[in-house]
Formats: sequence, structure tokens, C-alpha cells
Amino acid sequence: MTKFGKREDKGLIELAVEAGLGALNDSGQKELKVDAVYVGNAASGQFCGMENLGPIVAEQLGLLPCEAEKIENTTASGSCALKEAYRAIAGGFLDCALVVGVEKMTHLPTEDVTKIIAAAMTHPTGETVHGVTMPSLAAMFSRKYMEKFDLSTRHLALVAVKNHGNATLNPYAHFQKKITLEEAMSSRIVADPIRVTDCAPISDGAAAVLLQSEETAPPTKPTVMILGMGHSTDRQMFYQRAEEFEITAVKEAGLKAFHDSGLAPSDIDVAELHDAFTVLEIVESEDLGFFPKGQGARALEDGLTQITGEMPINTSGGLKGRGHPLGATGVAQIVELVWQLRGQAGQRQVHGARRALACNFAGLGNSVVATVLQGS
Amino acid sequence: MTKFGKREDKGLIELAVEAGLGALNDSGQKELKVDAVYVGNAASGQFCGMENLGPIVAEQLGLLPCEAEKIENTTASGSCALKEAYRAIAGGFLDCALVVGVEKMTHLPTEDVTKIIAAAMTHPTGETVHGVTMPSLAAMFSRKYMEKFDLSTRHLALVAVKNHGNATLNPYAHFQKKITLEEAMSSRIVADPIRVTDCAPISDGAAAVLLQSEETAPPTKPTVMILGMGHSTDRQMFYQRAEEFEITAVKEAGLKAFHDSGLAPSDIDVAELHDAFTVLEIVESEDLGFFPKGQGARALEDGLTQITGEMPINTSGGLKGRGHPLGATGVAQIVELVWQLRGQAGQRQVHGARRALACNFAGLGNSVVATVLQGS
Repeated sequence: MTKFGKREDKGLIELAVEAGLGALNDSGQKELKVDAVYVGNAASGQFCGMENLGPIVAEQLGLLPCEAEKIENTTASGSCALKEAYRAIAGGFLDCALVVGVEKMTHLPTEDVTKIIAAAMTHPTGETVHGVTMPSLAAMFSRKYMEKFDLSTRHLALVAVKNHGNATLNPYAHFQKKITLEEAMSSRIVADPIRVTDCAPISDGAAAVLLQSEETAPPTKPTVMILGMGHSTDRQMFYQRAEEFEITAVKEAGLKAFHDSGLAPSDIDVAELHDAFTVLEIVESEDLGFFPKGQGARALEDGLTQITGEMPINTSGGLKGRGHPLGATGVAQIVELVWQLRGQAGQRQVHGARRALACNFAGLGNSVVATVLQGS
Repeated sequence: MTKFGKREDKGLIELAVEAGLGALNDSGQKELKVDAVYVGNAASGQFCGMENLGPIVAEQLGLLPCEAEKIENTTASGSCALKEAYRAIAGGFLDCALVVGVEKMTHLPTEDVTKIIAAAMTHPTGETVHGVTMPSLAAMFSRKYMEKFDLSTRHLALVAVKNHGNATLNPYAHFQKKITLEEAMSSRIVADPIRVTDCAPISDGAAAVLLQSEETAPPTKPTVMILGMGHSTDRQMFYQRAEEFEITAVKEAGLKAFHDSGLAPSDIDVAELHDAFTVLEIVESEDLGFFPKGQGARALEDGLTQITGEMPINTSGGLKGRGHPLGATGVAQIVELVWQLRGQAGQRQVHGARRALACNFAGLGNSVVATVLQGS
């Protein structure tokens, strides 16, 4: 993956190519035939005035005449691209596919980015028109959830402190500076009770993974297998969803991924969750079954989700610390988990990590993809 | 499918929902569980300021909690969506998927549409910056091809006359008026030698198909099977391609689709080809193997590609007559062929049609998908 952050030095395609080339080089195969390129991207049309990313990236990587296309599912674009590549290979249609997630956003004024994101992720007539943006929606959900389960803003801040800390151990992360609990709890309010340290930043970046069939993958690298994937969609308008205190699509996607893989939440050694806002990491850690409902904040407080804890979450720094280039995020989660499962995560390595889960979603849990991976 | 054309009465989502509902109703299954919605769309971000089409369309069709996403490959978006749905089902991952292709364009000034299309489909530094648009690119290719194979503008006009004629037999087509050879040959020049009648129009519209596994599809309707699909990508910059007089990706995608299906071009009874510009129908009819290289224009002249000819092409009216809402086009081709293979094509029915081919592409043959279908 590329360094995430404000990448004034590179354009959208250059970032995608850098990540793609990284994955191809990492495979160490000189005569590799790539059958398809799947680009995960949320909004290149509005951010960069560009479409056609699949063929452009495939050509610049020298992979023609392979298949090429772009997959969009807002912030779940990266994991949806992974899903299509996985099925094409597991279904026997292709031997090898490159998945590249990419987004370029920081060249636009923040207000424009917020508007484009709101247009993509909130409901036009039920939310957007009333002034709802993603932070305001997350703020309303945070308050409700906090009241129900007796959380304070200190709990939200603990997520930020942990993930900023993890990010300092990840050279690819957007943020490279630890923050203290006091700093988090006194940072600028974006939408009460959400502070700026509760929000993932606007980032540029790309991440890529190479998928191969079991038959054609060379034995030169420690292999990581996709054991299961689940994808579930819920109502776009948050207030219309059946459940008030859970993200149902997270639950459903997780159940499906666990079912396919024959594993349970307790089998997972490390997870990357979609912490676009701090409260979401806590909620997902419950809805995926790592902790009982209402107990996620206590688990966090007790240090269970630290790198050295029983259930390490967002060792990469998460969306909060690693950064959140929308279409790249789902793929970056997989990259982190591959490194963890190969024992290549350096200072943030979870010892003996063998099974991992990624949870990536669109909007505020509108459409969710969960992926279970296993190391060799 | 919806009526194609200037659809001031409906927005992007409403068009997608109308087509999706049509496909669901057509299936005649009361208790149908749809596992996924794949939306093919080229540029909703730039045309309509919208993304997230997968989840939105799935929700409005009442199909939650199914998987949902959007596939973009410019004007091949529709057939790429079909490809992913097909593989998910044929690979055993899903039982049933709805594919919806949609585009809404006519609300913008033509100049803006032309710019968005050029930005998506021509190469930014190699073509767009020099003022190249799709019509000017097609004009250069037309001239070259015409000189090589001794074609006159009359041959281009013959495609337009045939396809406008077929469109009058298709109630869903954008154009509902026959044109004469004289009208075509004296219409306004867009980019010499291309006249306005040589170009597909700017259209709004949507088309949808429902895919089911062999095991779960009910025997109530004449079944249409996907026998094979091929997808191939070539260089984006036209002048850099290895072949000057063929569209290589058409050839490659066709070969793959024929190989998968175990059929030859001579087995095909009816085809929908990507005639965004009239010359393309002639070139594709050769590169897919229906006629020898350089003989496509003669076959057209001799009436072989008429509805009553030996190799009927674009019975729907094609992009030229049916209209060309970018992301909808690839799916609309499949809809027409399904109707043909079920004997439901009314006045434009090809008698005894049993096998069919669709060729849908991005840009001027940048990324091409070919699909072979068989009726029951």
C-alpha cells in the first residue's frame, strides 16, 4: 500500500499504480499472468472528474489484455472489489486477479469533500436535504448509543488514543503522532458529542492485494486464505432501520462470513474494523460477536483491544489513525491482516496471529462486507 | 426495460427501479429471494452527483438485506455487472441476482455530456488534452477504415437506416422514426466523415435482467442460458494499439465467449453489437467472425444483417436507434436477445432464433465484453 495522507505528490492513477506495483512485486513471480484488475473506488467522478479506472490502471501496470473494471459501494468499494475477485477465482473463472482500492480527496476543500460524501452516503430526501452529513449522523447515533449503554465521551476518546498509538507503529498510516486522553477529550467539537479526534481524516491513498487460486499460487510466500465473506445491506436512512443500538448489516455480514469459514468470533486473533467514527469500533466489536452487547466499551477500557490484548482491533491504526481514502480502506484492512498473518507487521505484530477478520462498510453501516482470513 | 430517450419524467433511481421491477414481475415468482443487486452505471457521479446506486436500488425494490453494489466500466458497465452476477451464480455463491443498467444524461447540456464522456473514455494526456472527443476519435477511425476497405459514407448511412428502421419496431427505442438513405447522407456533419445520423444519441434509460441458478429457476418461462462470456482490455489511446483496422479486444472477447460456449460465429442466429458510431457495427461484425475482414460492409449492403437476413444485427435498433444510456446499454442488449430467444420480439422477431451474441464495449473498444446466450 501507499503511504496514506495528504499526497500532493501523486494523482489518483499514480497512487493506484504504486500500490498495484507493490502487490505485484511482493508476489515475487516473474512470469505472472494477471487475469483481471478490480479497482475499488468510491467517487472518482466527483473527486477527480475521472471514470474508467479499471482499464487505465490495468494498462499502466502492463497487465493488458486482462479484464478490468471498477467497483463502487461508497466506503465499502474496496471490499466489494475483493469479493468479486475472490468469487471469480474461487468459482474457477480466473486464476489470478489484482484488487486495488484507491481514493484521491485532499486536493478539494473540506467543505466540498463533506458535501460529496454526504450526497453519496446519506439519503437525498430523508437525510441530506435536512442538512445531515456523516459526522452529524454519527453524532446522533453516538449520543443514543452512549445513553443506552452508559458510555461517556471518555470511551470514544479511548478508541482514538489507541488507534493513534497503533498508527505510530505503521509507517503507511496518515497520522504518525500519539495523542493523549486529555488531548482527545478537549479537541474541537465537530458535531456534539463527536470531536475532531473521533473522526477518520480525509486522506489520499491506495492499497492492493493479489489473489491467486490455490492451484497456481507459488509456495514461496506464507499463504493467506480467504475462508469466508459476508455482504449485507440495510436501509440507507438510519432512522428507518429496525434496530436502534446495533448495526444489523454488520451482524448479518459477520454471521455469513463466520458460517462460510466454519469459525466463531472466538477463533479470531486480530481484526480490522470500520472506525470512521470512534463509536463504530465499539459497536462493531459487539455486533460481530467479539464482546457481548453493551460490553464493547468495557473491553476497550480493560485493554482487550490493544495489540497485546486478547482481541486486538485496528492494529494498523484503523480508519482513525491509518487514514480513510474511501475506496482504499477495505483493501488496506486486508493488507494489514495479511501482514499480521504472515508475521510481517513489525512493531505492531500480534504474536501468533493465525485467523483474522475485516469489517468494511458503506455509510453508517448501510452495506457491510465482512471477510475472514487464515494464515498458513 | 424502460423506454429509452429524453426521460424528463423520471430520475436516475426511478428509471433503475422501473426496469428492476419489470424484470422481477416478468419472472412471475411470488416468493423470490434475490441475493444481490448489481447496478451497471458509467458516470452517475458526474451526471447526477450520486453514488451508492447498488444499496439505493436494492432498498427501493424491497430486496434488502441482499448484497448490492455498482459496477463501472464506462459504456461496458452493464455487461460487466452481468458478468459479476453470472459468475457469482455459476460459481455457486448465490442463487439469484438482479442486474440493472442505468444512466440519466439528458438533463445536462450536450456540451457538458460530451465533456464528461470524453474525460471518461479518451486518454487525459494523450487524447483529451488535444481536443479529442468520442465523435472525433470515431471519425478518424472511420476515415482510416473506409480508405483501407474502400467504403463510402453510403455504407455508414446504411447502418443508420437499418437500425432506425428496426427501432420503429421496438416500443422501448429512443427513436421511433425511419430515416432514408438520402436523409442520412445529408444530415449535419459532426466530425467529418461522421454525420449526426452516424452517432448514437444521448439517452436516459434503464434495463434489467434477473439471473438464477439452473437449480432454482422455475420452469414457467422459456429459459435463456448464458453459455459463455469473454472480457478483454486494450490500450486506451487508440493510436497506440497494435492493430489499425480491427478492434482487438472485440476479437479477444469474442474468441473467449465462443470458446467457453463451445460455439462458432456461424452458430449465432442474432446479435446485438455496440454501434455507438455506425462504422463500429461493420467492424465488429468482422472482428467477431460473422464476416471475413473487409467484407462487413458488403454483407450489410446485401441485406444479410437485416432482421430477415442470414445474420441479423441490432434488431432492437442498436445503440443508434434504441438509444445509448451508457450504463444501461450492455443490459439492454441482453434484454433484446432474451426476448428474441424466447420468441417475444414481436414485429422484429428473428424466426427460430436459438443462439445469440452481445458485444458491449467501453470507449472505442478499450474494454470489451462478449456474451453468448442460448434459448431453450
